[in-house]
Amino acid sequence: MRHVEPPEAVRWAADGSGVDIIDQTLLPESERRITLGTADSVVEAIRSMRVRGAPAIGIAAAMGLVVEMSRHVADPPEAFAGRLRQAAAALRRARPTAVNLAWAVDRTAAAVADVEDNAAAVRAMREEATRILTEDREMCRRIGEAALELVPEDAGILTHCNAGALATGGIGTALAPVYIAASRGRTARVFACETRPLLQGSRLTAWELERAGVDVTVIPDSVAGTLMAGGRIDLVIVGADRIAANGDVANKIGTYGLAVLAAHHDVPFYVAAPTSTLDPATATGADIIIEVRDADEVRRGFGRLTAPADVAVFSPAFDITPASLITAIITERGIHRPSDRSGTGFDFREGTVPHRVAERCTATGQTK
Amino acid sequence: MRHVEPPEAVRWAADGSGVDIIDQTLLPESERRITLGTADSVVEAIRSMRVRGAPAIGIAAAMGLVVEMSRHVADPPEAFAGRLRQAAAALRRARPTAVNLAWAVDRTAAAVADVEDNAAAVRAMREEATRILTEDREMCRRIGEAALELVPEDAGILTHCNAGALATGGIGTALAPVYIAASRGRTARVFACETRPLLQGSRLTAWELERAGVDVTVIPDSVAGTLMAGGRIDLVIVGADRIAANGDVANKIGTYGLAVLAAHHDVPFYVAAPTSTLDPATATGADIIIEVRDADEVRRGFGRLTAPADVAVFSPAFDITPASLITAIITERGIHRPSDRSGTGFDFREGTVPHRVAERCTATGQTK
Repeated sequence: MRHVEPPEAVRWAADGSGVDIIDQTLLPESERRITLGTADSVVEAIRSMRVRGAPAIGIAAAMGLVVEMSRHVADPPEAFAGRLRQAAAALRRARPTAVNLAWAVDRTAAAVADVEDNAAAVRAMREEATRILTEDREMCRRIGEAALELVPEDAGILTHCNAGALATGGIGTALAPVYIAASRGRTARVFACETRPLLQGSRLTAWELERAGVDVTVIPDSVAGTLMAGGRIDLVIVGADRIAANGDVANKIGTYGLAVLAAHHDVPFYVAAPTSTLDPATATGADIIIEVRDADEVRRGFGRLTAPADVAVFSPAFDITPASLITAIITERGIHRPSDRSGTGFDFREGTVPHRVAERCTATGQTK
Repeated sequence: MRHVEPPEAVRWAADGSGVDIIDQTLLPESERRITLGTADSVVEAIRSMRVRGAPAIGIAAAMGLVVEMSRHVADPPEAFAGRLRQAAAALRRARPTAVNLAWAVDRTAAAVADVEDNAAAVRAMREEATRILTEDREMCRRIGEAALELVPEDAGILTHCNAGALATGGIGTALAPVYIAASRGRTARVFACETRPLLQGSRLTAWELERAGVDVTVIPDSVAGTLMAGGRIDLVIVGADRIAANGDVANKIGTYGLAVLAAHHDVPFYVAAPTSTLDPATATGADIIIEVRDADEVRRGFGRLTAPADVAVFSPAFDITPASLITAIITERGIHRPSDRSGTGFDFREGTVPHRVAERCTATGQTK
C-alpha cells in the first residue's frame, strides 16, 4: 500500500485562535497557508474563493463563527448573542448556492443552546465545528469506499472543477475513490477539465493529484466530447453544491454539459457528495439560486485583457443537472440510483441504501 | 440601412511588397497591423496564429508565396523554381488541418504554368492570390445571404471560436449572416463561446462584433448547455476547417460538444464555410489529421501559471462533428441539408443546391 497524503484545505490554527487555510487563489504558483482570525476575513476568503468547495466552505464558516465569537467572550450576553446572529448571517450569505454553508453555520450556532455563559458557548461551538470537520473527513472516506466499486482498474475518469481534498476536510468527494484506489496500488487515469473561468480543475485538481502521484491530464473544458467519442472515458464523477429533493444537482458550471455528453456516449455519470449537500426543502433544481460571477473573471482573469474591456459576459457559477442524466449519487450512506429508472427521483432516506445493500445490488442496477 | 464595416484580416501592403495583417495575438488589447515580407514570416504568423481562420490563412499563404517569389525574380529559372517549391511546401505545412491552406497555395503556385519568365510568373501568381482574396470576399457575402433565412428576427445565436471577418478575406462565414442582418437593421443576440485555450471567441469574435455594433455576450465554453436548457439559443452556427466527403466537419475544439448539446435540446446546428473547405479526398472525419497544440498554451497561456508547470495536457486544436449532428452546411452555393435525413451524407455537387432552389425548399427541409 502506497502512502498518499492529500493536502489539508482547512484546519484549526495551532493555537486554536484562527482558521488555517491554504490560499487556493495562489495555487499552483505557490502553496501558502493563511490564518483567518475574524468572521469578516472568513467571509472574504469564501467570496474570493481562497477557500472553496461546498464541504470546505461549510467547515471554514463554522470555524470562522467560533474564532469570531471567541473575541467577544467578555461582551455582555445580549451583545454576544447579537454579534453571533450577525456573524452567522454574514457567513451564511457569503455564497448562495452551496447548502452545506448554511447547514454548518446553523449547526455551530445551535450549539450555544443551554450553555451557562459566553465562554461555555464558545467551547460548545468549537466542539461542534471540530465535529463537523471530523465528520467530513469520515464522510469523504466512506464516499470513497462506496464509490470504489464503480471505478474499474485503470479507468479513464473525467472530473470537473475540484471535488478533491482541497474542497473538503478530508480526501474529497469525487476524488475520494481515486485516492483510495491509489492507496491500494490500483491505477487510474484522471482527466481534469480545467474549469473556466477560475480554473479549479487545472489549478487545484491537477495540483493535488500530481502531488499524490496520481496520473492526471488537464484538458480544456471543450475537449471532453472528443475524449468520450474516442472511448477514453469510462466514467464521469463530479461533486455537488446542492442536491434538490428530486435528485437534481447544482454543481460547477459545465457539469450539465458533461452529463449530456456522457448520456450521448453511454458513459456513466456519477455525483459524489455528503448528505449535508441534500436539500429536502428544495423540490427541484429549478428552485436553486444560481450565483452569477463577476464579468471581469472572464474578461481579465489572468492579469491580461482577454475580451473587450466592457463586453457583456454571462458567467453563472453553477448549472443544474437533472436527475434523469445522473447514473448514481454516492453519499456516505452508499450508492443511490434512481429509485425508478424510468422516473427521475432518488430516494435518500436514511437506511434506504445501506452500504452493503448498495454493493450487493450494483450488478442489477437496483438499490431499493 | 446601417453601415457596418468589419475589419480586414489580411490584405496587400500598400506597395504590394508584403502581406498586411492584423496581429490577432494582440487583440483585444491593441489593434496593430504588421507587414510580412517573406514566406518564412508568413509561416511563423500562421503557426503562432497572428493570422488564423481557414479562409484567412489560405489567403495569407497565397500572398506570402507571391511576396517571397518577388524577392527572387533575378534568380536563374531553376533556382526560382526550386525556391517556389520549397516556399509552397513550407506554407502548406504551416498548419495541418485546414484544407484551404493547401488549396490556396497550390492554386497560386499553379499560376506559373506557361509563363515566359520569373517576372511574368510573379505577376501571374499575384493575380491569382488577389483573385483568391476577391473570391473569398464574394463567398462570404453569398454564404451570409444564403444563411440569412435560417436566422429569425432577434434570434439568440451561439457561435464558437471566430468564423468572422478576422477569419476570412470578407465578412466571415458563420458571422456573415449576422453582419448582413445588422446592415439591414435586424437585431440578433450573439453568444460567443470564449474558446479555450486561445480565446478566439472572447478576444476576436466579441471584438469584431462589438466594433460593428452587434449585441454580443461572451460566455465560458461550459455555459452553452445552461443557455440551451434555458431556451435562450435559437441556433448554433460555426465555421469549418475541413469538411470530409460525407459531411463530417473538422472545426475548433468544442464544436463537437456544442453539436451534441444542440441535438439534445433540439436546437438547429449549422456549419458555414466556402466550398474550398470541402475535401473530397477525405472520405470521413476519421481520416482528418487533428493538430495537437502545445501544452503551455493551457498551462501558462496568460503569462501566469494556471496548472502545475509540468502536468500532462491534452489540447487538440480541432474535433470532428459527424454529419449526423449537423442540420445544414451553408456554402456560397446555398444551403446543403443531408440528402437523406436518416442517412449521414451531404451532396455538395455543383448545381445540386442552387441558391434559389435552397431558398424555396427550406420550408420543406429538402434541398435535393
